[in-house]
This record gives sequence, C-alpha cells and structure tokens, in this order.
Amino acid sequence: MASTSASEFGINNIPYGIASSSTRTKPQCVTRIADDVIFLAELAAKGNFGETGVDLASIFLEPVLNSFAALPKAVQSKVRTTIQSAYEKKALGDSTENIQAVKLHLPLNVGDFTDFSASANHVQNAAEAILGTRSFPPAFHKYPPAYAGRCSSLFLSGTPVHRPYGQFIENYAAAEKNIIFGPSKGLDYELEIGAVIGKPLEAGTRLLTKDADQHMFGLLLVNDWSARDIQALEMKPLGPFNGKSFTTTLSPWIITLEALKAYETPAPPRMAPLAKFMDDPQAVNYNINLEVELVRGGVSSVICKVGFETMYWTFRHMLAHSTINGCPLRTGDLIAGGTVSGQRDEEHGCLLELTMNGRKPWKLSDGKELRYLEDGDVVRFTGMVGDKDSGIGFGECVGEVLPAKQF
Amino acid sequence: MASTSASEFGINNIPYGIASSSTRTKPQCVTRIADDVIFLAELAAKGNFGETGVDLASIFLEPVLNSFAALPKAVQSKVRTTIQSAYEKKALGDSTENIQAVKLHLPLNVGDFTDFSASANHVQNAAEAILGTRSFPPAFHKYPPAYAGRCSSLFLSGTPVHRPYGQFIENYAAAEKNIIFGPSKGLDYELEIGAVIGKPLEAGTRLLTKDADQHMFGLLLVNDWSARDIQALEMKPLGPFNGKSFTTTLSPWIITLEALKAYETPAPPRMAPLAKFMDDPQAVNYNINLEVELVRGGVSSVICKVGFETMYWTFRHMLAHSTINGCPLRTGDLIAGGTVSGQRDEEHGCLLELTMNGRKPWKLSDGKELRYLEDGDVVRFTGMVGDKDSGIGFGECVGEVLPAKQF
Repeated sequence: MASTSASEFGINNIPYGIASSSTRTKPQCVTRIADDVIFLAELAAKGNFGETGVDLASIFLEPVLNSFAALPKAVQSKVRTTIQSAYEKKALGDSTENIQAVKLHLPLNVGDFTDFSASANHVQNAAEAILGTRSFPPAFHKYPPAYAGRCSSLFLSGTPVHRPYGQFIENYAAAEKNIIFGPSKGLDYELEIGAVIGKPLEAGTRLLTKDADQHMFGLLLVNDWSARDIQALEMKPLGPFNGKSFTTTLSPWIITLEALKAYETPAPPRMAPLAKFMDDPQAVNYNINLEVELVRGGVSSVICKVGFETMYWTFRHMLAHSTINGCPLRTGDLIAGGTVSGQRDEEHGCLLELTMNGRKPWKLSDGKELRYLEDGDVVRFTGMVGDKDSGIGFGECVGEVLPAKQF
Repeated sequence: MASTSASEFGINNIPYGIASSSTRTKPQCVTRIADDVIFLAELAAKGNFGETGVDLASIFLEPVLNSFAALPKAVQSKVRTTIQSAYEKKALGDSTENIQAVKLHLPLNVGDFTDFSASANHVQNAAEAILGTRSFPPAFHKYPPAYAGRCSSLFLSGTPVHRPYGQFIENYAAAEKNIIFGPSKGLDYELEIGAVIGKPLEAGTRLLTKDADQHMFGLLLVNDWSARDIQALEMKPLGPFNGKSFTTTLSPWIITLEALKAYETPAPPRMAPLAKFMDDPQAVNYNINLEVELVRGGVSSVICKVGFETMYWTFRHMLAHSTINGCPLRTGDLIAGGTVSGQRDEEHGCLLELTMNGRKPWKLSDGKELRYLEDGDVVRFTGMVGDKDSGIGFGECVGEVLPAKQF
C-alpha cells in the first residue's frame, strides 16, 4: 500500500507501474496522477493513443512494463502528453481507481541487474569504515566499479526482509578468526537509484557515453540490503554474493527521463582524463533529494538526507562502461548506481558508513543508539526533485526487517 | 553445426536441446539418439507420453526447455524411458531429422547465472600464477566462492567470440602503472561444467546439501571466456565484471542427472568440518572426462585433459550455499562450477594457469608457443562419461576468436 502523498504525483510526473485491483484482477500497466491510478489499456482501448500507430491496448495489458519501455521515445512521449491532456480534460472516464484500492506489483522483468559503486564519497567513506583510510579503488578515476547482482531476489517495496543466515567471522579482533554460521549481525541498507533499460543494445555495439540516454527508460529507488559480516568474508576474491543476494527492494514507480529532464544538473568535474568513449562533456546527474527514514520501536528518525547530484559517475558512464566489452543490454535490465553518499555523516547512505561498521553508534531521535539494523526496524527511502508543489516524487521504497526464519 | 560423434549420444544419454529446421521452423524441444534429432512435440502429439498426465505436446513446442525442466523428476523419467522404448521399437515415425539438417538454439531462458570457483586446484594454481604463492581464498574450506555472471551474454556453442575492448594496466612491471584502453591482450577460456535448475526453490526455503539434487535438471559444458587484463583491474573491490561479461558459451545439450547416475563418484574428503547445512556425507561428483582442444593456424593441440571428479565443492554444496541466505532459485538458473583443474600442467583448465598468466609459454603440437588466445584460435571443449562404446557424451562447446570489432 503506497502511503506517499498525492502531491508527488502531479501532472508533470506520469510515472509507470504495474497494478491490479478487485475489479482488474490481472496485473497490468498503469500510471498515477495524484491519488488516481489510471489503467492504461482501457485508455488505449478507447482510442486515446491511436496517433502512435502502436497496439498499446495489448502492450498495456502485459504484466510488466518491458514492452512499453522498449518503444521509441517519441511514442512514449506521445503517450505522456495524451495522458496529461486526457486528465486535464477530465476524459479518463472509468479507467481509474484510487491508489488505496489497487495492489502494486514488481514493474519489470529484469534479465540482468548490475550494481555499480558510482559515488566517490561512498567508496572513500566505506574504505575509511573498513580499512581505516579514505582511499579509492585502483581504477575509480577511469571507470565506476560494478558487480552483477541477483535477479531472483528483486522484490517490490513493502516486501519484508528476513534477516539472512550466512557464514562469517564473528570477531575480527580475536586472535582466532573463526568462521561461524548464523543470522547476520550486520544487516544494512544501501540507498540507491536504479536506471531501467528501454531500447536494447545489440551485442558488440559501441555505445558512446553521450548517447546512452537513448537506452534509458527511467529511474526508480533501490534498496540493496546488505549483510556486512557475510559480505566481508566473500569480498576476496570474487566480491559480494550471499551478502547481497537475499533481497533487493525496488520502488513501484518508474520515473521517466522525460519527466526528469527539467532537473538535470552537470556531473562533478573529472579527477583525471577519461578514455574517449567515456568522455562526456554534457554528462548529467539529476537533482534528486533522497531521504532515509528509520522507524524503530515506533519512533521515526530521518538518518540520511543526500542529493543524487553528488554521484561521481553518471548512468551514462555506467551504460557505456558496461557495454564497451561487447556485452548486450536488454529491455528491463536494471543498472543501479550504488550507495548515494555525501561527505558529512548525515549524508551517508548506509550504516557501514554512518556508524563506521557498527563501531560508532548514531543517535536516533529518541536518543537510542543505532549500529546495524534490528528485527522490527522499518527502512523507508523517498526521493523528490523540485519543490513540494510542482516537483516530482519517486514514491517510496520501504521494507521491514523480520527475524531470521526458524527452520 | 554439431560435429560430435554419434556414439556419444547412445540410448543411455537422451539429452535435451532446442532445434529448428527448414521444415520445423519454430525452435522447439528435441532429444538426440545417434545422429537422429527427435522433435518431441510430435512424439507427444501421437500420444506417446499420455501416461504422464502432462500436456507435453504444448510444453515441447516451447522455444526453451524451462517448462520441461520444471516438471517432476518422475515425469521426466517416464519421458526418458518412453523415448528409449520408442527408439528401440523403431516407432519414432517421421518425427526425426538428421543432426546435419537442424539448427540448434540456446536451450534455456536463464534468469540468473552464478559462477563458482569450486576447484581447490584451480584456486591454488591461479593464486600461484597471479600472486606467486599457492594459497586458498579466506573461506574456501567453509564454502565455495562465487559471483553472479551476466545472462545477456550467454551464447550457444559455435557463436564466435570477438576479442573484447576494455581498460587495463598494460605493464604491471613498469614503474608507472598506466591504465590504457584497447583490445584485451590476455584473452582466455575457462573449462567449466554448469548445472541447470529444474524444480525452483522459493525464497526463504532452507535447502540441505543432501537434498539439492532434486532441484537440478542436468549438466552442460560452459566456456567462461575471460579477459585477464581487464579482469585483473576490476577484482578489487567488487570482483569480475567486464573481464567476463562479453561472452559465456554453453553447449547445446543438457545431460540429465538421471543419465549421469551411473557415473557418480564420491567428492574429495573435506579439509575442515562444515556448517551442518553444508555437510553431505553422500556428496557426489561425476566422473566426467573433459578435454580442451585448441586449433591454431589449422593445427590441433589437446591442451588439457582433466576429470570433473577433481572438484572440491559439488553442485549440491553450491546450491545449498547460494540459497542459505534465503535467495530463491528459478527454473533455468545456471550454476557453473568454475574452472576445472588438476594439479599437473596438462590438467589446467585455463591459460592463466597453464602459461602462468602468459609468462611461461606452453608448447603446441607444432612446437609453437601458446601464451594467451590469438585471433583465429578455435577453442573446443568436450566431455564424456564412461567408455567410448557405452558412455555418454556432452557434445561440444566451441568458439572461434575473432579480432576486436572495428568501430
């Protein structure tokens, strides 16, 4: 049940999602304006999108957004303006339901999920928390580090997160570094934004950074839940695996690049010259104001406020880097940028950074100490561009931590 | 075009694949006996599998094996014996075509591809080639290391492999370790076996190692092509990414666990006690004799012969480990075991090991020096259990190296 405010979904937003209801039992493509969820296949069946020349009545009945995401940007743009105009003319008829009456579903069939580490602040903060020194990965000035994530454990916002079991070193300070098996003691969130691939890229195509926007359908919120103790033991030699693959949470609404156009902002200056295919004088970030709210024992604390424009590497860079070896992109692929972090404590996008891997407790609003996530904690991400009246919201990406499952 | 010999596909094999032909233009499910490719939907339409109570005529028309792989083992077993008996009674009618007349296709829709590093020999050989000392990853005695691979770049045997572009350090020996951009100079293969998931596993289900066979449909050959120079620069901190994601090659035939049952062999003894869920006194490997043939300039050299029974971690262990955190398995998921290697040079399953990262050339059969792969090289993997007359073959997994694409 989405509890985000209607004002985030003004007529300049037009996000896309998948919903069903008691009368529309088949999950299908929708958009949302204020608290109205609009079932797009019905709008299409009434001939609204005839000018596009595309059989949108069928495409919008599909249970994921992939086919719509793959359409040319010009078609998507026409759909957007048609929805806006139908809403303004009050011509939506009976194709809407209130947000409270619908059930939202995972909006995509994700064939590959790549998670980058694109924030210069995050990599330095994390290095400080783990190694004790602020440092960069060896090639960070040339390309953003990345790993492939797990697709079968992508879940929709609202899905609870069971504390994962795993094997880890309980006490790194002890002389004997025994590996134990049990529920993780270092459960963390990672505040991220993901980009969804629209137009695919064939194997072996050279994609220049400056052309990468053509392949992005839109953005959404991502929580890359991480078990730091399980992860720590697997980083050498192959990188994150079981420490991440238990759950990744996606927000239900995809915000299109067209809607975000007005909120583009230049990427930070480069630390070093780049390879030609990566060079992008027009590189843009988006001015997305992100927040992390933690609810523990009924008490809410905002534990992070950070802007997405702090990211060193842009999604354009990420797409160009991940395809320069010939790797194809498919519609629905998810490219997440990694933890968004600023330099100040209150801008840190995960607890590894905020609490220095649990060693330096953070004070919650009731004065209690936060180190890592406890059972019962609720973590809520929100994102917003522009101001409260005319801006655009991402909705929320939320999850409650449940105890490790008993077997 | 599969050039493997008919004798590998005797009546004890009954592998599954996907094929089309000039008369059967839609890719669909097939098996193979000797040189006959049997179109299974036609066999089903004639009522052959009626006893199973499953609509196999529809399932076998699908363009991937996923739905068939998901069926209960008892149904799959009945299908196997029915095919064998129809073949023996010469009751296949006109549902077959010669292997030379069909086109084979990628047999699976792979939702997630995980690549393990399950060979104790490989991890030590690789450590020696890179670090100069034979050593184990920190948790190797407790679980097999793994990373998530890329699904969009899984290709069928026979697909050529373009040398990938990337960013890497050209000369680690130089004082200035400059990162350059260009075609990889360290292109390698990795000789692997993959397991295909049949019955899915729901999120949060505890899977004991000893029960994991229930979820495996069968095995196939995998070439996890690797660009060692691109990979080397990305190992810290997040592990392999662009160095692997350009191409992974799969053999066309999936050999069922039922066919391999007679070739089970005990797993090697454990180096250390395991967590209870990983413990598996019945842990089995398979006696698969693997070979790597390299054809360079028209000259063939067999550059590796190694047995799969050398693997320290079994597929059972890999499945249990990768799901202990609650991660679900879906039908069609691919779990590869990583490079298969013995201790002796001629048992090394990749060039990183065989040539010590290109420093120690290997002599090909014409006396020429092999360091890493050159443009025009053809790499062919084969696998066989049992003897030449009654044994079972995996067919081949082959790829030719083409020059880096010009842009």
